[in-house]
Amino acid sequence: MTTLNETHDANLTSWVASANDEGTGFPVQNLPYAVFRRRGSEETFRPGVAIGDRILDLAALAELRVFDGQAGAALAACTADSLNPLMALGRAHWSALRLTLSRALRSGAALQARLEPLLVAQADAEYTTPARIGDYTDFYISLHHATAVGKQFRPDNPLLPNYKWVPIGYHGRASSVGVEQRFPRPVGQTRPAAEGEPPQFGPCQRLDYELELGVFVGTGNAQGDRIALDQADDHVFGLCILNDWSARDIQAWEYQPLGPFLAKNFASTISPWIVTLEALEPFRAAWTRAAGEPQPLPYLASERNRAQGAYDVQMEVLLTTEVSRAAGHPPARLSSSNFRDAYWNIAQLLAHHTVNGCNLQPGDLLGTGTLSGPQPEEAGSLLELTQGGKAPIELPWGEQRVFLQDGDQVIIRAECRKAGYPRIGFGESAGTVLAAR
Amino acid sequence: MTTLNETHDANLTSWVASANDEGTGFPVQNLPYAVFRRRGSEETFRPGVAIGDRILDLAALAELRVFDGQAGAALAACTADSLNPLMALGRAHWSALRLTLSRALRSGAALQARLEPLLVAQADAEYTTPARIGDYTDFYISLHHATAVGKQFRPDNPLLPNYKWVPIGYHGRASSVGVEQRFPRPVGQTRPAAEGEPPQFGPCQRLDYELELGVFVGTGNAQGDRIALDQADDHVFGLCILNDWSARDIQAWEYQPLGPFLAKNFASTISPWIVTLEALEPFRAAWTRAAGEPQPLPYLASERNRAQGAYDVQMEVLLTTEVSRAAGHPPARLSSSNFRDAYWNIAQLLAHHTVNGCNLQPGDLLGTGTLSGPQPEEAGSLLELTQGGKAPIELPWGEQRVFLQDGDQVIIRAECRKAGYPRIGFGESAGTVLAAR
Repeated sequence: MTTLNETHDANLTSWVASANDEGTGFPVQNLPYAVFRRRGSEETFRPGVAIGDRILDLAALAELRVFDGQAGAALAACTADSLNPLMALGRAHWSALRLTLSRALRSGAALQARLEPLLVAQADAEYTTPARIGDYTDFYISLHHATAVGKQFRPDNPLLPNYKWVPIGYHGRASSVGVEQRFPRPVGQTRPAAEGEPPQFGPCQRLDYELELGVFVGTGNAQGDRIALDQADDHVFGLCILNDWSARDIQAWEYQPLGPFLAKNFASTISPWIVTLEALEPFRAAWTRAAGEPQPLPYLASERNRAQGAYDVQMEVLLTTEVSRAAGHPPARLSSSNFRDAYWNIAQLLAHHTVNGCNLQPGDLLGTGTLSGPQPEEAGSLLELTQGGKAPIELPWGEQRVFLQDGDQVIIRAECRKAGYPRIGFGESAGTVLAAR
Repeated sequence: MTTLNETHDANLTSWVASANDEGTGFPVQNLPYAVFRRRGSEETFRPGVAIGDRILDLAALAELRVFDGQAGAALAACTADSLNPLMALGRAHWSALRLTLSRALRSGAALQARLEPLLVAQADAEYTTPARIGDYTDFYISLHHATAVGKQFRPDNPLLPNYKWVPIGYHGRASSVGVEQRFPRPVGQTRPAAEGEPPQFGPCQRLDYELELGVFVGTGNAQGDRIALDQADDHVFGLCILNDWSARDIQAWEYQPLGPFLAKNFASTISPWIVTLEALEPFRAAWTRAAGEPQPLPYLASERNRAQGAYDVQMEVLLTTEVSRAAGHPPARLSSSNFRDAYWNIAQLLAHHTVNGCNLQPGDLLGTGTLSGPQPEEAGSLLELTQGGKAPIELPWGEQRVFLQDGDQVIIRAECRKAGYPRIGFGESAGTVLAAR
């Protein structure tokens, strides 16, 4: 069980001046990881850690051999083109590397002169998927989302009987998870126009986003074993932002009886940066069930989980369009919500996923499912915001939307804030819809 | 479009005498691939090709550098601990390697003396998963299975309206696919005993197998592109046997609305051997829809696909138990069926999977779904054979089964037979259920 340590000291500053500016979200208390290279270069992708508006090149740092012990071993794992080797080392190594990086990047650090040449401006970087994702699982942990979506399909009975007992999840597509994605509108079958007719076929007409967070598994479990609820934190490397793009019309026709498939697997856009669980430690929150809600089964319940199972992460969805970008308008904010409002929490997802002996592996990604909040303006998808396409959204520059149009760019941001502590940012997930091929 | 070539000559024999014996199913016309090492050794796993009751060690063969051109390049890709590098090379390379191996293993081959030391007895070998499986997709292509299972859930309306138009599929768990698996009975939530009560929790009581074939993707497609129906064969490396173990009671409680999850992802057992699509060329069959059935949408239909889209692969399921093994009884045959009876075919699965731009990658595995045939005795699962657990099966040694008991071993075999041609075997998938942990 991690508790606060010197890396969480709110008074720490960095010799990288921009890290001390609230704007970047990457103060020395954060230290998120990505896999990057200089934009447009032929360099190999390698791990880096964000500090202010810079990236510290960890592969280059490893060559300096200035760290030893667990931190040195962890840094030596940061020379591949993915974070999987670091993820596989486990929590003690992650924590040792964080402490050592924190000390090296603090104001007054003796290493400053040696590290300065290893900084790359984020403005000059491009990113790749930070981990080789073996399996991607998507959950459905917002009661508000499940209820709102369920109402559209089953007005009298929106929530299925299993929802309040089972952290509902399903397997998604790992190959199409990426960063900074630009993808053609998916094509596929949709419902027949009239009963007895063949289905329709063509570009999706109801393309949507889903506001989610992603949980990167660090250390896994052997097949047949399970991860106990109170050990789950040891297995989580960190969190990213996730946009689970969804073709609602394809989904409506295909999803019975085995779940969504082509409606979801064409693209899923994550943020390049993974914020470690240790960086989020100051933002843990009590996990409570509202009065009248059932308590989870024993394998999903513990005193510790109730005391600190949730995380206070604030998220928002923004939209730009071809029109807005051409005119120079700022992105329109479509909604915001908080991860704290989810019905299930991260440790419960790992405990549930492995209760049957299913093996998780380093680099696996677990999506939370759409994180809609309790208020209508906290809905995490257009399906909810537009009431299934019936209530168009007015954009500030005069356009309307029910679902996404070609050229639309969806940006999701996330951050943690509390009084007296530097802002911990997640960067952003940004993806753009292109015309169907 | 592959057609028959000299490797398919029925009269070819091998200098490996056991290959000329119908028993093994591995004549020189077959040449399936696996990844193996000597049992109990600390050797690295490496690719091998089956010939009779032997394995030709391809990593060792590569060191001899006796092949050149595309065959040499393909062989050079057979030195990793998975077949992914070979799979990624593409059909021309696979075909060149097959031709060269066929010539080297034929009776009278000049290379015989140099290859003999590279043979390992299959009896002395152990296997690992032949490919690093990036994504595993399971389909549902047997109309007979879908109807039989649907009847148990929806007696009046067994088949959903999308079934005859959409090759229904969903993403499964790649991490838990393996060979020769022995796994503990999964534990999980099942339906409440009475309405209003909490769900039950404990070891699965309705553990089942599913008789399937697996399709290994060779070359993939870029995200956003699609694989056209008539190009699909170029992307398929080969076929294996697949047992998609299923916890029916867990499935019944969890699967709405997003599909099966913990009911399936604890284990999926494939055969160690992958039979290449080229080896199956003589067993292609016309793919036809019965009178009155709708024709597929254009992206799933072509003259070529109708002419030869199906494969004539005969499969059977066998069971041993602790009792039967102790008494020395032969395995009991539970059912048999033929892949030819499926409602959709392999090329259609690839065309459908990618129609929305979803990217397939070398080593991806596509399961067919349970391949039940039209007759009751051709059912590919206990759920069907026992009518949902209501009609126990009598085993020849006096035991009964509705679902699987601890210690039960399920063996699935597959083969292709035709008059005047050597039997093409798939080996077997074998897995054993252990007690719950």
